[in-house]
Amino acid sequence: MKVGLDVGGTKTDALAVDDSGTILGRVRLPTGWGPDAVARTVLDAVAALGDEAGVALDRVRSVGIGIPGQVEPGSGRVVHAVNLGVDALDLAAMLAPELGVPVQVENDVKAAALGAHALHARHGASAPASMAYLNLGTGIAAGIVSNGVLWRGARGTAGEVGHISVDPNGPRCRCGQRGCIEAFAGGGAVAERWGRRSALPVRDVFDAADAGDPVARELRAGLARGVAAAVRVLVLTADVDIVVLGGGVTALGDRLMTDVAAELSASAEASPFMRSLHLTDRVELLPPGSPAAALGAAIVGAQGDATFDTEEALVHG
Amino acid sequence: MKVGLDVGGTKTDALAVDDSGTILGRVRLPTGWGPDAVARTVLDAVAALGDEAGVALDRVRSVGIGIPGQVEPGSGRVVHAVNLGVDALDLAAMLAPELGVPVQVENDVKAAALGAHALHARHGASAPASMAYLNLGTGIAAGIVSNGVLWRGARGTAGEVGHISVDPNGPRCRCGQRGCIEAFAGGGAVAERWGRRSALPVRDVFDAADAGDPVARELRAGLARGVAAAVRVLVLTADVDIVVLGGGVTALGDRLMTDVAAELSASAEASPFMRSLHLTDRVELLPPGSPAAALGAAIVGAQGDATFDTEEALVHG
Repeated sequence: MKVGLDVGGTKTDALAVDDSGTILGRVRLPTGWGPDAVARTVLDAVAALGDEAGVALDRVRSVGIGIPGQVEPGSGRVVHAVNLGVDALDLAAMLAPELGVPVQVENDVKAAALGAHALHARHGASAPASMAYLNLGTGIAAGIVSNGVLWRGARGTAGEVGHISVDPNGPRCRCGQRGCIEAFAGGGAVAERWGRRSALPVRDVFDAADAGDPVARELRAGLARGVAAAVRVLVLTADVDIVVLGGGVTALGDRLMTDVAAELSASAEASPFMRSLHLTDRVELLPPGSPAAALGAAIVGAQGDATFDTEEALVHG
Repeated sequence: MKVGLDVGGTKTDALAVDDSGTILGRVRLPTGWGPDAVARTVLDAVAALGDEAGVALDRVRSVGIGIPGQVEPGSGRVVHAVNLGVDALDLAAMLAPELGVPVQVENDVKAAALGAHALHARHGASAPASMAYLNLGTGIAAGIVSNGVLWRGARGTAGEVGHISVDPNGPRCRCGQRGCIEAFAGGGAVAERWGRRSALPVRDVFDAADAGDPVARELRAGLARGVAAAVRVLVLTADVDIVVLGGGVTALGDRLMTDVAAELSASAEASPFMRSLHLTDRVELLPPGSPAAALGAAIVGAQGDATFDTEEALVHG
């Protein structure tokens, strides 16, 4: 049995899965702020899997943690997790002794990509040979999985499609460039340009656009344009079979998908080559409440336990 | 010993390499037009390796062919090689009986990526973990190699970065979209917009830009902008360690590299994130006359011979 945790900016999602990939228990806790509180949250969540979800913790053989920020593969250490108040945190070294099992740490988007791939493999007739998971949250980034293996890249920027500029006259991005995909479609950038406080500013923007507000319509169009651009980049560069959209902005569901599909269709109408890619058929939405990120973290965790199964075993075992 | 051929629009480059990767002989022939003439060119080039370069053809155990156009992996068949007058050609099935050894066919840019990686591994202290070969020819496309393995993607469009739009108000691309990287930086697109006939129109454009011609200056700036955009896309998506530039347009050498480096430096100045990528240090030029494409074809060919070595053996054997 393995445990996976997705440590988010507000909530931490934890689950335990058995060797066949069946989820045995799942809990959600508020995430603490700062290094010590984040570490405490992980320990509390694992304990809650036992206390609240009835998971037999003595059978847990590995723990994997997905967390926003930069994680050097195999290091167990996260840096620049700014949304968690963490500058640097050696989570694996800190928690492995407490938990008594190997602990692995991975960037949350990369973990979610692995988890989305595993879920797809279980629910679909056959797993796609390759998949990108495109996270539409405050920022925009992707994880790429091929044959069940995460594409890690050379220096930790694989999937950083959010900072590809697609319009030299586009809005200024927080990275300093103009017209980045994230400047168009990042939840944070859209909220900032919208300027009104709300729990989900992007939903406000869509509602106001429906009501005819011209600023909202422009922001909404830009969001679809940015997401469609990211899909094109992922397919034209990595040629992934499908692109799965997830993250906070996807709470908009079909309203988002309709806009994105319209953008993709517009480029297909203009271009026989783009039409041949059938992009609208290759974009999927991660279902709300999907355990992808925590499941992916569990897979990463098990990879640190040499005696344990790999994702293949999780999927097909 | 293995033979590799790079069948280009005007010339075919053929070489034989031994198991240690040493080039034993190399010949160049004009490429014929149309399916039969292309097949004839391959046979003539192999014969010329024996006659002119003194290669012991009875020791050849595989032949690999790199060719512009779409090649389904393992099919031995090329379609839409428009520059060669070929609509569809089953090269492997046609030539293997004549040559008496297994024949493999690969897209020329993908083959060149493998070859560039192998050359890098031989000449450098250590091979980069991952590399993109960005071909700047009539069109623009890339091949991505990681750990010596070509990234093939799901449906044959891996590395098709030329048709990523980076400016909604940019020039119309032959694919139908606006502002594609290829519309800015493809040799064909630049020549068409320049409109004056010449052996290497891009060189004319650079010369005229140096002389102050405003149209030429705009075209030259666009070319650098397109190449820089392709480099950013490859690093931000696939996170390749280095990007090697090759293809006809790179005959401009340092003149091209200076412009591209200036573009990359400009985005690095605007953005600490882009600065952290050190892109100018990660772009290299394939030397003029490099055998990368034919060498890569030889590697692909050997992969079809189960008794033969892989690229690893070629590089390290």
